Amino acid sequence: MAELLKGKPVADAINERMKKDIKTLCEKGITPTLAILRVGERDDDIAYERGATKRCEAVGVKVEKRTLPADVDEKIFFNELKALNEDEKIHGILMFQPLPKHLDEEKARKMLLCDKDVDGGTDGSLAGVFTNSKEGFAPCTAQAAMEILKYYGVELSGKKAAIIGRSLVIGRPVAMMLMHENATITICHTRTKNVAEITRGADIIVAASGQMESLGREYFSEGQVVVDVGISWNEKKQKLCGDVLFEEAEPLVSAITPVPGGVGAVTTAVLVSHVVEAAIKKSL
Amino acid sequence: MAELLKGKPVADAINERMKKDIKTLCEKGITPTLAILRVGERDDDIAYERGATKRCEAVGVKVEKRTLPADVDEKIFFNELKALNEDEKIHGILMFQPLPKHLDEEKARKMLLCDKDVDGGTDGSLAGVFTNSKEGFAPCTAQAAMEILKYYGVELSGKKAAIIGRSLVIGRPVAMMLMHENATITICHTRTKNVAEITRGADIIVAASGQMESLGREYFSEGQVVVDVGISWNEKKQKLCGDVLFEEAEPLVSAITPVPGGVGAVTTAVLVSHVVEAAIKKSL
Repeated sequence: MAELLKGKPVADAINERMKKDIKTLCEKGITPTLAILRVGERDDDIAYERGATKRCEAVGVKVEKRTLPADVDEKIFFNELKALNEDEKIHGILMFQPLPKHLDEEKARKMLLCDKDVDGGTDGSLAGVFTNSKEGFAPCTAQAAMEILKYYGVELSGKKAAIIGRSLVIGRPVAMMLMHENATITICHTRTKNVAEITRGADIIVAASGQMESLGREYFSEGQVVVDVGISWNEKKQKLCGDVLFEEAEPLVSAITPVPGGVGAVTTAVLVSHVVEAAIKKSL
Repeated sequence: MAELLKGKPVADAINERMKKDIKTLCEKGITPTLAILRVGERDDDIAYERGATKRCEAVGVKVEKRTLPADVDEKIFFNELKALNEDEKIHGILMFQPLPKHLDEEKARKMLLCDKDVDGGTDGSLAGVFTNSKEGFAPCTAQAAMEILKYYGVELSGKKAAIIGRSLVIGRPVAMMLMHENATITICHTRTKNVAEITRGADIIVAASGQMESLGREYFSEGQVVVDVGISWNEKKQKLCGDVLFEEAEPLVSAITPVPGGVGAVTTAVLVSHVVEAAIKKSL
């Protein structure tokens, strides 16, 4: 039986940490504030917005919503973004992407201030995660995976970590963050041969390919710690599943995150903590 | 006997490619121009400056030198950098680092325009190499290693690459560039256990730890391609040596870069090609 690395206690610990910081900020008359810039009415954006808002309000972070119609004029959109950048009372900006096609997403990404980039998508944040400077913010999901490993005291230094997936929101940044903690990283992707051989030889596996239940028994070995970042709806089983075939991996490995209730439960707590961090940095 | 992957033919090919581009630029009345900003009189800076100047002039790239005393006033230094940023006739800026301690290097790095950052040190360039956008420029040595592999037709897709060293000028960027070519990368560093076991299992090895002749027979196996980025003066042998113990690796592997005459022979050609590329991008 593997230890279950649940996300909730990790998120709770992040919240506790935050509450202290928020109290200190309040004493200085500062209310950490997140602006959510959403264009259009995509279901997943709205769901994420709802979750983030709830989480923010629970700890005392203010949320300001800027919702624009899907066919918003380019000028209006960029004026809004500029205003949020310049607004001293806004500490973090969550800009949902992809933007509608008529808006220049690259221009928007470049315009967004790195100091307010709590979702970790600007050049400054990406360079920060690559170089291990403390600039900008790491992508929330990648940091959530790291927070879980840290919370459960998983040793990283000198360990072999296999990362499955090379996306910019999780695979690549989490690989860099593991390396900054002195793990030896191997990044597997669609062109990698013998992925199972690589993962079997690792101490830590981060599964982030987005391929539902694609990692069966042959990918794992005894004593491993597995972080499953995937989350997909399994039509057949009528439930949410990760990239790992849980019932085959769990009896074999030493610790594993559940899906749901693992990484996903930590991601918004990380987002909110970034807003608080941004407010602290600004107040110094 | 391993195939010797010499740098000179690679540099020559880069030069030939450049000459065509320079001709096209000249026809538009544009002379690609590199500014070299040097503070103080460090020997290695001066040596690199001499090599770069020679290489530039050989192909028709103009060099403008801005040399400031080691105790230059901060204001004068930043004014100079700002002027180079704004000068329409300057396409690339090579700013020697580290700067003297009284100058804010981080501020300088942030001020340098990404479009003129031919040495690949700005956030924009680092994010570019991490994300594989075409923004900025890759660090020259990392790209030199890639140019050698490309020139000699080494297949990268689906191959295992072990990178030894995680520096920002070579280890990390070359790992990302290999991954963008669909290699499966493992980054080894000082905290990695059993480095030899990892490298023996790789198809391609990039040695970039800077530890002279630290990689003996046990690190290699048959059929491998080895790129040796190290270059150190061996007092005992009275010659330049790489990170690889050449006489032990060479009989075993399938191909290897010599030191000197390998990666080092390609680096300045890459720098010059970045200046030409910057001029082309600007002329579009």
